[in-house]
Amino acid sequence: ADSWSVAGLTFNSRLLVGTGKYKDFEETKIAIEASGAEIVTVAVRRVNVSNPNAPMLTDYIDPKKYTYLPNTAGCFTAEDAVRTLRLAREAGGWDLVKLEVLSDEKYLWPNNPETLKAAEILVQEGFKVMVYTTDDPHMCKRFEDLGCVAVMPLAAPIGSGLGVRNPYTTRIIVEQAKVPVLVDAGVGTASDAAIAMELGCDGVLMNTAIAGAKDPILMAHAMKHAVLAGRQAYLAGRIQKKLYATASSPLDGTFF
Amino acid sequence: ADSWSVAGLTFNSRLLVGTGKYKDFEETKIAIEASGAEIVTVAVRRVNVSNPNAPMLTDYIDPKKYTYLPNTAGCFTAEDAVRTLRLAREAGGWDLVKLEVLSDEKYLWPNNPETLKAAEILVQEGFKVMVYTTDDPHMCKRFEDLGCVAVMPLAAPIGSGLGVRNPYTTRIIVEQAKVPVLVDAGVGTASDAAIAMELGCDGVLMNTAIAGAKDPILMAHAMKHAVLAGRQAYLAGRIQKKLYATASSPLDGTFF
Amino acid sequence: ADSWSVAGLTFNSRLLVGTGKYKDFEETKIAIEASGAEIVTVAVRRVNVSNPNAPMLTDYIDPKKYTYLPNTAGCFTAEDAVRTLRLAREAGGWDLVKLEVLSDEKYLWPNNPETLKAAEILVQEGFKVMVYTTDDPHMCKRFEDLGCVAVMPLAAPIGSGLGVRNPYTTRIIVEQAKVPVLVDAGVGTASDAAIAMELGCDGVLMNTAIAGAKDPILMAHAMKHAVLAGRQAYLAGRIQKKLYATASSPLDGTFF
Amino acid sequence: ADSWSVAGLTFNSRLLVGTGKYKDFEETKIAIEASGAEIVTVAVRRVNVSNPNAPMLTDYIDPKKYTYLPNTAGCFTAEDAVRTLRLAREAGGWDLVKLEVLSDEKYLWPNNPETLKAAEILVQEGFKVMVYTTDDPHMCKRFEDLGCVAVMPLAAPIGSGLGVRNPYTTRIIVEQAKVPVLVDAGVGTASDAAIAMELGCDGVLMNTAIAGAKDPILMAHAMKHAVLAGRQAYLAGRIQKKLYATASSPLDGTFF
Repeated sequence: ADSWSVAGLTFNSRLLVGTGKYKDFEETKIAIEASGAEIVTVAVRRVNVSNPNAPMLTDYIDPKKYTYLPNTAGCFTAEDAVRTLRLAREAGGWDLVKLEVLSDEKYLWPNNPETLKAAEILVQEGFKVMVYTTDDPHMCKRFEDLGCVAVMPLAAPIGSGLGVRNPYTTRIIVEQAKVPVLVDAGVGTASDAAIAMELGCDGVLMNTAIAGAKDPILMAHAMKHAVLAGRQAYLAGRIQKKLYATASSPLDGTFF
Repeated sequence: ADSWSVAGLTFNSRLLVGTGKYKDFEETKIAIEASGAEIVTVAVRRVNVSNPNAPMLTDYIDPKKYTYLPNTAGCFTAEDAVRTLRLAREAGGWDLVKLEVLSDEKYLWPNNPETLKAAEILVQEGFKVMVYTTDDPHMCKRFEDLGCVAVMPLAAPIGSGLGVRNPYTTRIIVEQAKVPVLVDAGVGTASDAAIAMELGCDGVLMNTAIAGAKDPILMAHAMKHAVLAGRQAYLAGRIQKKLYATASSPLDGTFF
Repeated sequence: ADSWSVAGLTFNSRLLVGTGKYKDFEETKIAIEASGAEIVTVAVRRVNVSNPNAPMLTDYIDPKKYTYLPNTAGCFTAEDAVRTLRLAREAGGWDLVKLEVLSDEKYLWPNNPETLKAAEILVQEGFKVMVYTTDDPHMCKRFEDLGCVAVMPLAAPIGSGLGVRNPYTTRIIVEQAKVPVLVDAGVGTASDAAIAMELGCDGVLMNTAIAGAKDPILMAHAMKHAVLAGRQAYLAGRIQKKLYATASSPLDGTFF
Repeated sequence: ADSWSVAGLTFNSRLLVGTGKYKDFEETKIAIEASGAEIVTVAVRRVNVSNPNAPMLTDYIDPKKYTYLPNTAGCFTAEDAVRTLRLAREAGGWDLVKLEVLSDEKYLWPNNPETLKAAEILVQEGFKVMVYTTDDPHMCKRFEDLGCVAVMPLAAPIGSGLGVRNPYTTRIIVEQAKVPVLVDAGVGTASDAAIAMELGCDGVLMNTAIAGAKDPILMAHAMKHAVLAGRQAYLAGRIQKKLYATASSPLDGTFF
């Protein structure tokens, strides 16, 4: 089967989903089941995974069935991010983590220098770091070189729904990478996810595109099919683009 | 279930496929099964459906299981197209047909004036005409008004693989139409099919994108998922596009 | 100099402009001067060119200095269009005309079958017909074959500001045409006009993009420069697109 | 007039050009004159500005007439870049400089961490630093905050000719910046430059797009007009995009 691996774990689904922004845990649970995801991200600072007196995510999304990926949503400095993940490891034993350090509350854009600082510390402390960053080929290479187990370049700003804004940088990132490349953030609809996979990415992570749709459950189904479709199309080898069918050669460096 | 109807027939699959350009009928058969299609187009002038001394398509694609849609591929005048479909009706009893009249051998672009002439005759003669045309809102309306049972605007030139070149005209066509709108021709890869469906089309028809892929069977799988993904995303209601998540309003008429 | 010719007349400016939608004739005059246009379209049914008791366009835009191009804006049938242009010829002696027949008041999309009918009559009656149509390679060829002196495919719906929606069809039209190709309708801003020219078109016609800008005069200047820029870039021969500078070959038929 | 300022100097032209990749200094000179540029970048490590026994750039491009902007092309570490600019200051007294630190010889992508290190040192040493970087809103803000006098985000990889790949990030950068924003690298043709200016950038810097065109001199003219066109269109306030002219509202967050 067409599986992929990260940090020694192997997965069949290439769609990773967030657990936030749903109406309640019941909807979260149904949407995630519909998506077919095997890895779910959990915002350690926001989602209740330890207070037994409030509804707990773990009661709905079984940590034995799903791989929990604690993330550092809400952290704006390396220090905060590192502290958050240390707490997560102490609390749940998680060492496979998603690192994200953002710039500010308004744009929620990755802060690469702080992310770099945090990544260096976390890798040294034995975390298996999947790192959220910009679609910057140099930074992705750098994170890989310092020991991150996966790079997660954005498609577009978190929650923007703009899709893969720059397929060219994504293609360069894939071309260079020896660790899995997962497009993370910015997907708006099914075709966006398919495009990410057609570029050769190993997977796609999303949250708002599903949780924010009018019908989140149906959109979760859509995304499951979209990721499969994009992956299979990538493997199947698409026809080349031509100005018209009988043209003797594909469109070249003067296309539009 | 999310079915659609044309000429009194109801279908669950929204992917229609051609039967040409495969290595042999065996590959045709496996690819079509993988695509999940229920309607297959057949180029009456090119595909053997009646000579029992040569391999016959009907031995591989069971006409009781699939709806055969005879088309007029290779016709460049109304007269030719009408004659071709009359022969098809006599031979196989088919009256649900796909009309296409092309301009020339080089660009294979629809010849709308000749298509219009042919459509008028065929509708009068009792054919149920699904009509291939340009993504021209006026022509699509016109074909609908004269009694065609479905309009099939191109995404891009046949065999070009360029995808939905003009989502705006497609959106206007969908907005206006009371008969099914099927995007036909120009799809190159899975995301193209998803995009067509996200625009609100009722279905997608393709041939080269599957038959011309390096691995046609796998691409057929991809397209099945892509059409489902796009359809479900359309029904699910995607999030709006914003410059960034916390922007107070979606991107408006000055976007890029 | 880099001039172009239509119907035996030679022009240096490749920007053609409409005369409608301005605040008053004074603004029309200043904007048109700023645009550097030598040809102006005049909606015969809407603009006063004959009643001496009301402000007349001809008092502001000197018909000796500018080539007036009467158009059939507001006509929805061949009959109406033909009658309108016959009146224009009687009134002003104009036989170089812009033919447009639209589908309806809502979408203002070209009605090609009626346009075709009108073009046949007008050409026979000795008019020099510049014809507004869709970006349909077959129709453009057809209009050329029946004797039109220029074809004017749309970039996008009139007044939409969406720019050249389908550069591929425009490129095919240019590749085929032996008469001038002028992109007409749909331009929104300067880069849209530049793109039209970079595709090899002979000129661009616009009205709303200038008259509807917040500062029409300044936008007229912008468009003058944009058309020049696009034309010169076309002639200068742009560099090919590559994924990165040191790539050994330009991007080919699998680009995005 | 519509001038702009950086580091206390005021300029009328918003097109900045490189001096490399031309056939010879004579062509460099004519192309730069045609471009109307007032600022020229000079690769300190590559261009002869001091050896009187070889042709010198200064003999062709008068440093009294043009503002020389020494750059660090060819530097892959902060240390190299800093050393190069110190030498430039010693040799020619230049303290207004363009800092660029690239990742490697293949992709020539900005190395932001090294660029950050170099910028901190150079600003402290009194250089006025115009900094080449990615189209990363956080990094641009960061460079501004530490005292850079202008930020120069790329449009696309150097020499790729891909144009402004991500107008959305560029728009966020412009929205945030208090120093001039100049798009640098990746422009391929005239419309690309116009688009950069329509996004509200203060200027555009290019080299390959002109020097690599078939006719560099004519392309220089094209770019002069394109930058003017884009700037004027930005100031003039374009019409909004609509699906069709009579639509009651502009296209919103569900456009394509």
